[in-house]
Amino acid sequence: MAKWIWYHGDFEIYHAMKQNFDREERGMKWPAYWYTSNWNHNVYFFKEVQLHQAEAFTVTIKGEGYGKLINLENDDETKFSLMNSLICPIGHYRIEIYVANLSGLPCAYIQGQKIQSDESWQVSNFLGNSVDAGTSKYFLNVDQNPMNFKYTHEIRHAKKVENIKGGVLFDFGHDLTAKTVIKFKRVFQPLVLCYGESRTEALDVQDTYLEHQIRPDHDPAGNYDRQTNCYTTKLRAFRYIYIPDAKNFDMIGTLAVDFEFVKFPRIGDFSSSDSKLTKIWQVSDRTLRLCSGIFFIDGIKRDRWIWAGDAFQCFYMNRYDFFDKELVERTILGLRGELDIKQHLDTIVDYSMYWLISIELYYDTFADKGFLKAVYPKMKRLIDFSLEATDEKGFIHERKGDWIYIDWADFDHQGPLCAEQMVLARALQSVIRVFKLLNQDTKEYTRRYKKLRKSIDTFYWNPQKHAYIDSYESGKDRVSRHANIFAILFDYADKKRTTEILQYVLLNPKIAPINTPYFKFWELEAFAKIGYYKKVLDTIKSYWGGMLDNGATTFWEYFDPNERGTPRYAMYGDKYGKSLCHAWGSSPLYLIGRYLIGLKPTHPGYVTFELKPQLSLLGDFKGKFPINAVGGYVALEVKGNLLTMQATQIGGTLLIDDKKLTIPVEQARSIIVHN
Amino acid sequence: MAKWIWYHGDFEIYHAMKQNFDREERGMKWPAYWYTSNWNHNVYFFKEVQLHQAEAFTVTIKGEGYGKLINLENDDETKFSLMNSLICPIGHYRIEIYVANLSGLPCAYIQGQKIQSDESWQVSNFLGNSVDAGTSKYFLNVDQNPMNFKYTHEIRHAKKVENIKGGVLFDFGHDLTAKTVIKFKRVFQPLVLCYGESRTEALDVQDTYLEHQIRPDHDPAGNYDRQTNCYTTKLRAFRYIYIPDAKNFDMIGTLAVDFEFVKFPRIGDFSSSDSKLTKIWQVSDRTLRLCSGIFFIDGIKRDRWIWAGDAFQCFYMNRYDFFDKELVERTILGLRGELDIKQHLDTIVDYSMYWLISIELYYDTFADKGFLKAVYPKMKRLIDFSLEATDEKGFIHERKGDWIYIDWADFDHQGPLCAEQMVLARALQSVIRVFKLLNQDTKEYTRRYKKLRKSIDTFYWNPQKHAYIDSYESGKDRVSRHANIFAILFDYADKKRTTEILQYVLLNPKIAPINTPYFKFWELEAFAKIGYYKKVLDTIKSYWGGMLDNGATTFWEYFDPNERGTPRYAMYGDKYGKSLCHAWGSSPLYLIGRYLIGLKPTHPGYVTFELKPQLSLLGDFKGKFPINAVGGYVALEVKGNLLTMQATQIGGTLLIDDKKLTIPVEQARSIIVHN
Repeated sequence: MAKWIWYHGDFEIYHAMKQNFDREERGMKWPAYWYTSNWNHNVYFFKEVQLHQAEAFTVTIKGEGYGKLINLENDDETKFSLMNSLICPIGHYRIEIYVANLSGLPCAYIQGQKIQSDESWQVSNFLGNSVDAGTSKYFLNVDQNPMNFKYTHEIRHAKKVENIKGGVLFDFGHDLTAKTVIKFKRVFQPLVLCYGESRTEALDVQDTYLEHQIRPDHDPAGNYDRQTNCYTTKLRAFRYIYIPDAKNFDMIGTLAVDFEFVKFPRIGDFSSSDSKLTKIWQVSDRTLRLCSGIFFIDGIKRDRWIWAGDAFQCFYMNRYDFFDKELVERTILGLRGELDIKQHLDTIVDYSMYWLISIELYYDTFADKGFLKAVYPKMKRLIDFSLEATDEKGFIHERKGDWIYIDWADFDHQGPLCAEQMVLARALQSVIRVFKLLNQDTKEYTRRYKKLRKSIDTFYWNPQKHAYIDSYESGKDRVSRHANIFAILFDYADKKRTTEILQYVLLNPKIAPINTPYFKFWELEAFAKIGYYKKVLDTIKSYWGGMLDNGATTFWEYFDPNERGTPRYAMYGDKYGKSLCHAWGSSPLYLIGRYLIGLKPTHPGYVTFELKPQLSLLGDFKGKFPINAVGGYVALEVKGNLLTMQATQIGGTLLIDDKKLTIPVEQARSIIVHN
Repeated sequence: MAKWIWYHGDFEIYHAMKQNFDREERGMKWPAYWYTSNWNHNVYFFKEVQLHQAEAFTVTIKGEGYGKLINLENDDETKFSLMNSLICPIGHYRIEIYVANLSGLPCAYIQGQKIQSDESWQVSNFLGNSVDAGTSKYFLNVDQNPMNFKYTHEIRHAKKVENIKGGVLFDFGHDLTAKTVIKFKRVFQPLVLCYGESRTEALDVQDTYLEHQIRPDHDPAGNYDRQTNCYTTKLRAFRYIYIPDAKNFDMIGTLAVDFEFVKFPRIGDFSSSDSKLTKIWQVSDRTLRLCSGIFFIDGIKRDRWIWAGDAFQCFYMNRYDFFDKELVERTILGLRGELDIKQHLDTIVDYSMYWLISIELYYDTFADKGFLKAVYPKMKRLIDFSLEATDEKGFIHERKGDWIYIDWADFDHQGPLCAEQMVLARALQSVIRVFKLLNQDTKEYTRRYKKLRKSIDTFYWNPQKHAYIDSYESGKDRVSRHANIFAILFDYADKKRTTEILQYVLLNPKIAPINTPYFKFWELEAFAKIGYYKKVLDTIKSYWGGMLDNGATTFWEYFDPNERGTPRYAMYGDKYGKSLCHAWGSSPLYLIGRYLIGLKPTHPGYVTFELKPQLSLLGDFKGKFPINAVGGYVALEVKGNLLTMQATQIGGTLLIDDKKLTIPVEQARSIIVHN
């Protein structure tokens, strides 16, 4: 079957640009504030074919160009127009398809019997070596245009309509990304739509983040269709729509929304006798799905941008929910952009590091060396670019325009930051592991890694504080949770130090708490790693449960349990600046799947995997989790003291009470367990 | 007056891409076969203003974005939509305009009283330092779109219509770049248009390079306008259009063409009592104008691409014809592309060198240090990229994908080529001169230049051959004209060697002759440089005159006086592959202006200039030549022994018979001369 092909990674660069230009705030478009990578506008695709009978083929392209047929037996070249069907004669030929596109993505679709465009074609941008063609499972049809992503659409109606303050409020039950469609009963008339992720925001006509003015006298985008008497807005994210001054909206018309999304399969599933935990899983799943499209984005109302830190956590969550391989690849490629690196990902140094680590994570998840090979040059350029900013100790410093982020927290930022050095060290480990898999030289990276690890211990470990300090230049010896969490997660703290960190940092209420779900992810993972499963479960129930108690139907960007009323929705100095459907809010998917159920691959690509459920904590539950990218899963149910399990592939082991049981494939197996 | 603004150089990158994708051959589009530079899709413009009264302004952009007003007294920031008119209050403010454009060039037009977009605005692509905004004299109006260049149009009718071989042949007298417009008398009907730069080509229905099939049943581009019953083709270059099977074309309709061009002023002019020389000037001028648009391109039928070698010669010719400053700037920027350099210009190493030299030439011509400053980072990257491929002798080698061209000639290509080293040395001289003007460090470049000059003399000068040899590795000691011409032009050969080169190379019929007008340019300049003005004049008259005798109404890409009939039109293995309107065919403009009239600036920007006409060769003549970019000129006429001269600005000196005479400004002055 033929596929649309393009220069490897360019589809993602094109769509990442589109995505990162798609933020809206109060009638203004707000493009991402970083350097935007470009795709190649001028490329050629080529492949050698050896035919035993002549074959007709057609070439469809986006752009302009021509073809070339080269007889490899006598070097004869024939140029051909792409307008008509073509014949490749018997023999050994090289087919070249040249495509240029000034305003869009040059791509091609080549269709014959044996001659079919797919990953076996090579592409060149007229520089250096060619690369394998890029493809997508969504673009297999000649009538498609790879510049327009194929979304699924569903018309949704409000779950509740309420007349309030002289207007009408539509509640869709939870956040959606949708176009609003108004079918007028009679005349096309002016209307104002106020959107809100919260009811408060939608009703706050003055200050709502997103609004839409329908004006029959001014419709430059052509949103109104005279034939159907329908007006369709642009795509926006919201739970509520409020139309002020429209008490009797029934007289005006009807309102529905066209929900636009990428349909990922339902594989991961979890329900528990604890209904709150079940709900947390469901809302996490909804939140992650809403933030997953062409890419994992941070939030659906705001920023709608691709942030490497947020995406990195999604890569973990994805493993326990829909296990989509291409979505991870697209996000990796979209984030990284063109081969040359000019700036850290999203300008953030730590985000570049997470991106490097994510390649190793990708391999453990999908075990696809082909993708590693394709992304290797971009990986190498990024680590080399990063290392250029290191000092003689091995510490990375910020250059002009760099952002050392780590978390929304008060760090002692004087001199190099400890947490940043830890993610650099961890990234070097990933680089070394991946480069070794590709038989690339790793000597220099290993040397740098060792030096860096040594310097971290020398300069940041503070025996008096029993902790890693933020930073050593100021002499303040400030302790935050972040570096200490990383030390545990990355195995940089030995048993003794781990115990000290636990006592003096993680369980120490005097150390400022983590307030973002983003870093809660790492904190809880650190607790799980040292066996504090109950702490993980309790926190999931109190922190995420706390959001549910606040009416959340999707999880938030930031949650402070002490806030009440409208201030709950504020962030970045904006009354409604907080995103209420934020990907990093979905981490219970991972924490439950990875630590409470205890599923992990023990060999890349889940060739072998283990389940180590925390039965004493969970009560009755039922879970199903993906173990490969083609719908495979492992299912597990506990009812009383009966545990039933089954997987769609061999390699699974259940660890329970120091026992190892093989997870069966043919038929489910039940065992008696002691909760 | 406000101007459209964009990221400096990006307008040129955008249009260069469009230009280099604009080649057509037998129904196929043929994009240039090199890496294509990208423009920035995401930028912001900014400027500080200090207002004593509040001022309203409007912002129009191509793309999407928003604005920010920053009070520099208290750092207050306000975001604003670009939809409505805005107010900047009294005080010290910084205005920022953010513009992103997925498919095109982000640009802005800002219009107020004091607040007006122009070169005083800065632009950033979110990387490193900002640059001055780019502008163009063609884009001063808010209603324009900088992505659509503003051409002049003129409807032209055939000068001659001929019924031949059952069809009808339209002859427009000389090459044109135009759309063909057919107004049908009755029904819209199928027609075939065969284009030709030569009559032979147009009539050769099978093999013509460009043809157009008009098919009422297939008009995807919407070329047919039902209302006017007119069909308009895309733009093509031709002198002739032949419509076979249309004996009584009058019955079908009428044919005219819509000539599209950039209207450069008529400044340079030359006529002589020798009518052939007058004609050569006129045809050269026509050829150059046809090849001059947004950029200097090589030829109008083929390739329609921007080649640095061809453009370099145009920069010289431009000085004696229309002296357009922006056209030179656009071509320099379009050729060079984005800041990062990934490949030599048009893949050719020597072309990169000419580009570097052209910056010095630009300065001598226009004395604009602002442009030098803007282009400096791109200059530095290019010379550094080039020097990376040099060896311990200082010689430049080709890397994979590099093309060492110099000329269409048989060189001994084993090892580094002498001519290539000479242009590298010359480029280093330009780099040193320009960098000194900008107070940049030149030590390393000077060291490299000296070493290279020494190596050239050591390895290439062959005392037995009395010449520079092509290459020293093969031991063949092959002598071509090229390196020896450069040695004279660049002052690398001293008086003694120059005499030897003259005798053993330039005047030696055994050394293969130059066959391209391209290298004839340098050869004749070398002859002129050593005082062989008669040789220059004779060659102009025989070589270019020879083309006229062959029916040329524009000058050709290549001319071999011995060819007759159809083979005259062939090149690159293509029956009609030769371009018959090729920019480098126009060099008589330069050779006459620079050497026979003897006009040159003696101080950058023609602050002072001299005229040193070869009166004994020229007979009666009348000439007018530009001396600045705003229409200034020097005029000179010789009638018998009366010479009359005048200039529009002071600084001119006439050199004649060892006398120096000031060229007057107020009133023309006549003197008696001895021819």
